[in-house]
Amino acid sequence: MPPAHPFRHRLRVYWEDTDAGGVVFYANYLKFFERARTEWLRAFGIGQQALRDATGAIFVVTETQLRYRSPARLDDVIDVSVDVRETGRASMRIAQAAWRDELLLAEGEIRIGCVDASTFRPVRFPDPILQHLR
Amino acid sequence: MPPAHPFRHRLRVYWEDTDAGGVVFYANYLKFFERARTEWLRAFGIGQQALRDATGAIFVVTETQLRYRSPARLDDVIDVSVDVRETGRASMRIAQAAWRDELLLAEGEIRIGCVDASTFRPVRFPDPILQHLR
Amino acid sequence: MPPAHPFRHRLRVYWEDTDAGGVVFYANYLKFFERARTEWLRAFGIGQQALRDATGAIFVVTETQLRYRSPARLDDVIDVSVDVRETGRASMRIAQAAWRDELLLAEGEIRIGCVDASTFRPVRFPDPILQHLR
Amino acid sequence: MPPAHPFRHRLRVYWEDTDAGGVVFYANYLKFFERARTEWLRAFGIGQQALRDATGAIFVVTETQLRYRSPARLDDVIDVSVDVRETGRASMRIAQAAWRDELLLAEGEIRIGCVDASTFRPVRFPDPILQHLR
Repeated sequence: MPPAHPFRHRLRVYWEDTDAGGVVFYANYLKFFERARTEWLRAFGIGQQALRDATGAIFVVTETQLRYRSPARLDDVIDVSVDVRETGRASMRIAQAAWRDELLLAEGEIRIGCVDASTFRPVRFPDPILQHLR
Repeated sequence: MPPAHPFRHRLRVYWEDTDAGGVVFYANYLKFFERARTEWLRAFGIGQQALRDATGAIFVVTETQLRYRSPARLDDVIDVSVDVRETGRASMRIAQAAWRDELLLAEGEIRIGCVDASTFRPVRFPDPILQHLR
Repeated sequence: MPPAHPFRHRLRVYWEDTDAGGVVFYANYLKFFERARTEWLRAFGIGQQALRDATGAIFVVTETQLRYRSPARLDDVIDVSVDVRETGRASMRIAQAAWRDELLLAEGEIRIGCVDASTFRPVRFPDPILQHLR
Repeated sequence: MPPAHPFRHRLRVYWEDTDAGGVVFYANYLKFFERARTEWLRAFGIGQQALRDATGAIFVVTETQLRYRSPARLDDVIDVSVDVRETGRASMRIAQAAWRDELLLAEGEIRIGCVDASTFRPVRFPDPILQHLR
């Protein structure tokens, strides 16, 4: 995995992640990418449940774009990178990739917004997020 | 599938349901069983979201017991039965089984309770449920 | 749902599909889209397990692009459309969308390829697929 | 978590694990339990993909029994224990539990067998497994 990536999260492939093709089910890369974003937020002190309790806001994914490059299998160790590309007050764009050692498995971009948890209306990111992103 | 079963729900196996063994991932039978219970409730007019909106109560699974008999594969059509075995004011026990034609795939029992959605404290079943079960 | 769509598959939202935001977990739209593609293939007589047994080939998703428009909830009925946009001998591009009545929930494009199931090397689509697509 | 447990695996609850009740979806404890069994096997040098490549055998779950005690939420850290209770040449019974600190979330027993991956016929456990279990 290229060393330039600012954040990475490591995970293992379990039976639950695979499908009858014998490889990781493609939809599960969205889960892997999200786990990495969660740990990236935690790395600068932000827990999403705590954020919701404090502000009533939750993150939502508004757009995803993925390209699948190589299959991964049971027991593989996968590194997932998180790389913020663009941030506004109510939306951010994050480039992510999954690697097994030097082999690129999947890559893509995820657009994240923020909504009020009870109404699902868009709101701007809570201050701790904005402060960190700037 | 034995004709005596009072309710059955039919579903198909998709890629998402399988694992690298080439068969349905065992944990997914809990999902299949729940889909059948949901449709069984709907068959006598009860939607769980509507019930929650009206009463604040949601069903919770408190116990599950499953035995896996034969593997199912991609594209299989599965019939899932729902058979209430025991009902109280705050708990019910339901026998369920999954069949592909005459072949038993999995069978077990699910215990269901009811909780207040905001506190997760046990409550008795809402009246429409109790009325139907008796 | 606009009437022009050539194929649609109807499904219901169960507990398994939701997340703690109270809505359908965004990654699950990829599952919904795939169920619809599976049923679309079946509608012209192609079962993927049978195809694999006969030809050794399986479909793989090589690219996904989704935009999330409105949240869906437990018990919602969702219609998913399948609309082929581009087909080659080894790749096709399919536009898909999920609707609850007239409300667009999610839309996107899925690129599909074909590989040999044992080597995962790209192969051209089996003849029955090519014949149908032309 | 009681210190007597011979093996434990720690994991975090992500969005993918939750449902619209705001808690971990009960079927996912089967996934958590399996991740812990996988890591327990790895702790004594056994990788399941390597085992399959070498022997043609895969583990299968033949029976599961779970009781749900307390709900877990997004961001919770969960410890899952693995405790072998009974072992034969072709079947083993494992007690497992999930804890958040001292709070028991779920507990149960999983029965595991072994099958030939191509025929799904029961076989006895491969020697490395039998040697370790004795």
